[in-house]
Amino acid sequence: MKRFLFLVFVFINFAGKCFPITNDQIIENCKNIKLFYQKVDHFNYDSNQQDYFQQRYIIFDKYFKGKGSPIMFCTGYEADIVDLCHENFFAWQLSEKHGALVVFAEHRYFGESLPFGNNSHKYPFHKYLNVDQTLKDYANVIKSIKSKTPNAENSPVIAFGGSYGGMLAAWIRIKYPHLVEGSLASSAPVSQTNCYDYARIVTDIMRNSSKNCPNVINKLWKIIDNISKSEDGLKKLTNYFKLCNQINSGEIANFKQILVNAIFFLVQSNYNFETNIVTPLPALPVKAFCDRIINSLKDDDLENEENVLNAISNGYQVFFNYTGQTKCLPLEKMLMQNRDALSMEILGCNGKFFTFCTNGKTDIFEEKHFVFEDFFNSCKNKFNLSPVENLFRTYYPFIHDDHRSFSNIIFSNGLWDPYWTSGIYEYVNDEIKIILIENAAHHADLLEPNKNDPESLKKARIDEEKIILKWIEDYNKINPIN
Amino acid sequence: MKRFLFLVFVFINFAGKCFPITNDQIIENCKNIKLFYQKVDHFNYDSNQQDYFQQRYIIFDKYFKGKGSPIMFCTGYEADIVDLCHENFFAWQLSEKHGALVVFAEHRYFGESLPFGNNSHKYPFHKYLNVDQTLKDYANVIKSIKSKTPNAENSPVIAFGGSYGGMLAAWIRIKYPHLVEGSLASSAPVSQTNCYDYARIVTDIMRNSSKNCPNVINKLWKIIDNISKSEDGLKKLTNYFKLCNQINSGEIANFKQILVNAIFFLVQSNYNFETNIVTPLPALPVKAFCDRIINSLKDDDLENEENVLNAISNGYQVFFNYTGQTKCLPLEKMLMQNRDALSMEILGCNGKFFTFCTNGKTDIFEEKHFVFEDFFNSCKNKFNLSPVENLFRTYYPFIHDDHRSFSNIIFSNGLWDPYWTSGIYEYVNDEIKIILIENAAHHADLLEPNKNDPESLKKARIDEEKIILKWIEDYNKINPIN
Repeated sequence: MKRFLFLVFVFINFAGKCFPITNDQIIENCKNIKLFYQKVDHFNYDSNQQDYFQQRYIIFDKYFKGKGSPIMFCTGYEADIVDLCHENFFAWQLSEKHGALVVFAEHRYFGESLPFGNNSHKYPFHKYLNVDQTLKDYANVIKSIKSKTPNAENSPVIAFGGSYGGMLAAWIRIKYPHLVEGSLASSAPVSQTNCYDYARIVTDIMRNSSKNCPNVINKLWKIIDNISKSEDGLKKLTNYFKLCNQINSGEIANFKQILVNAIFFLVQSNYNFETNIVTPLPALPVKAFCDRIINSLKDDDLENEENVLNAISNGYQVFFNYTGQTKCLPLEKMLMQNRDALSMEILGCNGKFFTFCTNGKTDIFEEKHFVFEDFFNSCKNKFNLSPVENLFRTYYPFIHDDHRSFSNIIFSNGLWDPYWTSGIYEYVNDEIKIILIENAAHHADLLEPNKNDPESLKKARIDEEKIILKWIEDYNKINPIN
Repeated sequence: MKRFLFLVFVFINFAGKCFPITNDQIIENCKNIKLFYQKVDHFNYDSNQQDYFQQRYIIFDKYFKGKGSPIMFCTGYEADIVDLCHENFFAWQLSEKHGALVVFAEHRYFGESLPFGNNSHKYPFHKYLNVDQTLKDYANVIKSIKSKTPNAENSPVIAFGGSYGGMLAAWIRIKYPHLVEGSLASSAPVSQTNCYDYARIVTDIMRNSSKNCPNVINKLWKIIDNISKSEDGLKKLTNYFKLCNQINSGEIANFKQILVNAIFFLVQSNYNFETNIVTPLPALPVKAFCDRIINSLKDDDLENEENVLNAISNGYQVFFNYTGQTKCLPLEKMLMQNRDALSMEILGCNGKFFTFCTNGKTDIFEEKHFVFEDFFNSCKNKFNLSPVENLFRTYYPFIHDDHRSFSNIIFSNGLWDPYWTSGIYEYVNDEIKIILIENAAHHADLLEPNKNDPESLKKARIDEEKIILKWIEDYNKINPIN
């Protein structure tokens, strides 16, 4: 009888626990930063005559329940690993709930994992920045952690990643499936067959948020060109966009690119709640942006250029100054490429896997096509790198059918994410799980659950958890704990 | 009516054709050697600042029936590509029969595909000799041939390989499944968990051929040590083994290694018919070798060292002089490492995937254990390379269970092959086909069919063909010809 009561007690206790990890805890957990001694060139098997660097990684073992419990391995992407560690709430939540060892590995040449310090971005030091080397970094971290963490040797590893990190999560399962049991590749554009898709979907999402908004934005680029022809116009432009210093005509092209990128980011961050990922944004920022534009537009007059410019620049305050704390926009500073952005550009030269194009027809932007020769010249002039067209696609699966032979990958995509048609979104085989999430933006499933989350997103997280638990269960059947 | 007759005629014609490719035709076909311009370092994506080399490959398109017909891609191993081309009869046979494009790609640093000519084996030029680079060579050849050969763009690629070439055939499917639809990995020791297994099986096979033979061989090493202590003894040893020049005591260790290797090769070449792969050998050479020893042994006296030495050296004539054409053994020449053997040793330093060990207990050889430190020192002293223990196993599937997620690989192994327990020989999943062939030696399924072939081998070839045709059929369902 006592035994029965005990069992009931345990059951209630378990059922009552809601695993309420908080952001504060995550921030605390993410302080466990360590360094991993990596070869710079993993494809040179000689351990002596070569360079090494310190890769940062975060390891947190307080939840880890030992034998048979999983290792949640988060593939670093094009940012500081601490930011990623704060962002990937889902990995933390599942780890707390299921007793996992949590690992975040920083991507080489990003954050503080610079193989050659300040020289990392220069020739010839930047040639080791590519996906092949990065996956081997991760393979080494996994192998080492499994062998060095008590009771982790036979733990199944689940890779987690979003966006480019999601591509890496998919690819590490694809290239090293003996190390990674399964991967959640959230919003991973591994299969971009049409480079105009992204901007087209940006436009569609904007139109769905506010019917006339795209038509207004569509005017912007020509208006900027016109107004920037005179000194007086440049002064006006400076005032409309609240730039700290007077813009000059040489900065116009880059300024327009900043405005395009802002819209891109706004749309892929079209979450149902306030966020602060790169910059603070309101809930449903696309609607907020468009509403402000439409409301500022006097008499719906699209012919009056200053009327349009005034309206749009008002809208941009949603992106540039949502908190109202920004007195003016430091354009010079915004034009400076930060270290991570520089690395991302080099990474593209060392194996291009995604391209943004616009055609002004299916989207509301100026025409900007992908011309390999221009891309080559840019890599050559800026980094002294000479890429070969489509080379990356020789070595990595690319089109949908290329993925036929793989298993244990969840490709999840929010249908509010402009990347979604560049991912794997149609049935491949029974072992690749396609999850499409209505009303959800870029890798929303990885973010902290919010009361405004749509049902589709809640369901996606539940489905993902079930699939991952099944992988762990299958693994433990083959590798019995005792 | 005419149409009916025509159909019958076609059917008879097809059924009557027995695809009788001959060795002479194969030798002729293998003359189609071309050169492929390869990067030396595929993991440096910069096409400009790096070295290139000419990789040899053989391409034969006379059988190729175009759209939907397969490409049979034979992964070069540690030898000249022309030799491999002559050897892999099975690939030729299937290609003629099923209208395939035939490709043989030479392994970098072997045959004539030397990236740095005569400097290829020296530091630092030899660091690009590893499996990672080799698989990318093959990936590039496949991609290029598919795009440049008319009507081959949508052809399924089937990889073929035996022994180390079989490992590469398996690995190219494993790492680049979007390029290779399936692989026949014949006698591929991808999963060596016990380095003593090979010599143990050598001993077992010898015992099965001739019960007392292993006991005699077992004496040899000590006898050589004893006899080589005196000048007179060295003279006798020279005479027994018909060496061209007097052996000296400094050569004894290497001479013993040659004798061990000869037995290894004899056993793995224990075919039911005469062969001439590395050296001419009789049918069932193990029995021939042992019979000659046992028959030469006077009074079964194993205590008389010269009696044993005389008997064994007689046996070795089966290996060293089966044709009777060899007047004497040029030991100095045999001790010189040829270019391919040198490359093979470097390849091991750049990622060890197979080790020969002996313990004198489960086998009939002197103890020779694998000590990583010794291996390291050998790589270091000879090639200035510093290997890391077990590093290769981080990047490639190794144990049986590591292969769970793969598909479309045939792992075939002859049970007379000492490598067989180092391969994948137990059920993995439904898509990995395990074929065990009784009474068959090393990659016998790839060799020319012979009237003495056991039924098991005939059946294996039929099964392999069926499986490969199924892969091709499945591929063509997904990639319709029109």
